[in-house]
Amino acid sequence: MTTESKNKTAPTRKDFYKEFEITTRWLDNDQFSHINNVNYYSFFDTIVNQFLITEANYSPTQSDKIGLMVESNCRYFKSLSYPDKLIGAFRVRKLGNSSVSYEVGIFKQNEDELCALGTLTHVFVKRKDSKPDPIPETLRAALAKALID
Amino acid sequence: MTTESKNKTAPTRKDFYKEFEITTRWLDNDQFSHINNVNYYSFFDTIVNQFLITEANYSPTQSDKIGLMVESNCRYFKSLSYPDKLIGAFRVRKLGNSSVSYEVGIFKQNEDELCALGTLTHVFVKRKDSKPDPIPETLRAALAKALID
Amino acid sequence: MTTESKNKTAPTRKDFYKEFEITTRWLDNDQFSHINNVNYYSFFDTIVNQFLITEANYSPTQSDKIGLMVESNCRYFKSLSYPDKLIGAFRVRKLGNSSVSYEVGIFKQNEDELCALGTLTHVFVKRKDSKPDPIPETLRAALAKALID
Amino acid sequence: MTTESKNKTAPTRKDFYKEFEITTRWLDNDQFSHINNVNYYSFFDTIVNQFLITEANYSPTQSDKIGLMVESNCRYFKSLSYPDKLIGAFRVRKLGNSSVSYEVGIFKQNEDELCALGTLTHVFVKRKDSKPDPIPETLRAALAKALID
Repeated sequence: MTTESKNKTAPTRKDFYKEFEITTRWLDNDQFSHINNVNYYSFFDTIVNQFLITEANYSPTQSDKIGLMVESNCRYFKSLSYPDKLIGAFRVRKLGNSSVSYEVGIFKQNEDELCALGTLTHVFVKRKDSKPDPIPETLRAALAKALID
Repeated sequence: MTTESKNKTAPTRKDFYKEFEITTRWLDNDQFSHINNVNYYSFFDTIVNQFLITEANYSPTQSDKIGLMVESNCRYFKSLSYPDKLIGAFRVRKLGNSSVSYEVGIFKQNEDELCALGTLTHVFVKRKDSKPDPIPETLRAALAKALID
Repeated sequence: MTTESKNKTAPTRKDFYKEFEITTRWLDNDQFSHINNVNYYSFFDTIVNQFLITEANYSPTQSDKIGLMVESNCRYFKSLSYPDKLIGAFRVRKLGNSSVSYEVGIFKQNEDELCALGTLTHVFVKRKDSKPDPIPETLRAALAKALID
Repeated sequence: MTTESKNKTAPTRKDFYKEFEITTRWLDNDQFSHINNVNYYSFFDTIVNQFLITEANYSPTQSDKIGLMVESNCRYFKSLSYPDKLIGAFRVRKLGNSSVSYEVGIFKQNEDELCALGTLTHVFVKRKDSKPDPIPETLRAALAKALID
């Protein structure tokens, strides 16, 4: 958690593929007047689905395949607080046959210092029986573009 | 809830004093794929506090007077859904000695049709003993500007 | 909001039809260390659906009719705080052809003083076209039992 | 994520130190009618604080030291859904000088199969300057009792 250790590994905004705006809410802050650790996952969830919907032409509600979250992780580097305006920056860390790991970086608007980094892994399954199934081709093509070199 | 009854009473965007942007979240939608009725109150709460903080120089965490919510109400006119981008429009409906009623209208970005209308009443109290107390002067001046004619 | 005015109108636990337990969460508290006004609506929503599901054999996800919220209201009488254990008490205030108004009282476990009172109005519509439609008979029978005298 | 791999590593209820009840909420479910991945972190946060408050005599709002979350993680094994009643089971995985890693297992009431496992790391800091500081002695003693062998 030291600045040094973070600087070595932490991506900056230019390292991500696509940015989305996030407006914070009064309720995001907890009793310590900072955005509660839980709410970062709501940001991640929102950014991942927004990428899928707006950049990959995927419909979470209509597609016959859905992404089940099997693991999620967040490292918190710097406190944020409502009414900060935030940026959620998206990229793909690993793209498998039926699974994909996303990374979402949270930044303050107009700043380049990483505040939190989320990693989330979806396994795509058939909606009807929840069995793992290959990621749909259109979706895969969009995810491939966002893949880390 | 008919269009007719709404048209007679429903304010449009120009009837409000100040607008704030709201980005929706995946979790705002419930099992019916619409923004759940509860989350509108989070929008209202966010907009009211944003007005207090950014337009009235009021600090919810530092001021020696705080606003306690005594009543809140929402009428829902039109469904919304993540990832819609929204506008929260703010005005003051009634300004008393220690109490104030706010109205917040929720609109889709670039549209003028009212989707939900919230009314929220704060009673200002001393932080230390929760006794009602006059609204601070600077705050009152800012609220007065936003008061409905 | 005085004790006197509340005593005249406020129902107590025996005035409701059915009680459900609610465990509070760290995130329910806001920066003032009290349960935020928004979260009471999540309690109401939870209690209403729990009645529909467990007492009225209604499936919000499977039924061909769904309840759309057209108005909601809360009066806040007494602050609550995580980790309080709460009771959500349910009754029906008004039962129409396609609409129903519920009341949910929030109490501390083992106490009889009303802390908040919610009123919520559902209009039942056909899921496929969102047109108002009579409340299903089995549901109506269950709601009728919970109706205020 | 196969049953086999989970069986080898997944703790059961008897492996935890202390259990707390969790009532689910309508809004916990997302559009897929399962409890959304984000809300598990709200369960974790709630259980950790509940242990600190009720078992370790620690006051998150009054103590001169507070726990900052530096990392959190969840592995999801089995879907849950409102209105399930849940158990949050708590133990300490690692106890350092100023940092502590908690594990919270989520189970269905009356079942012994692990549904989700959260790992959360707090670094205790002085409230006034956010500098890392040893965990208070009373808190440390309580955490030590909950430490995995």
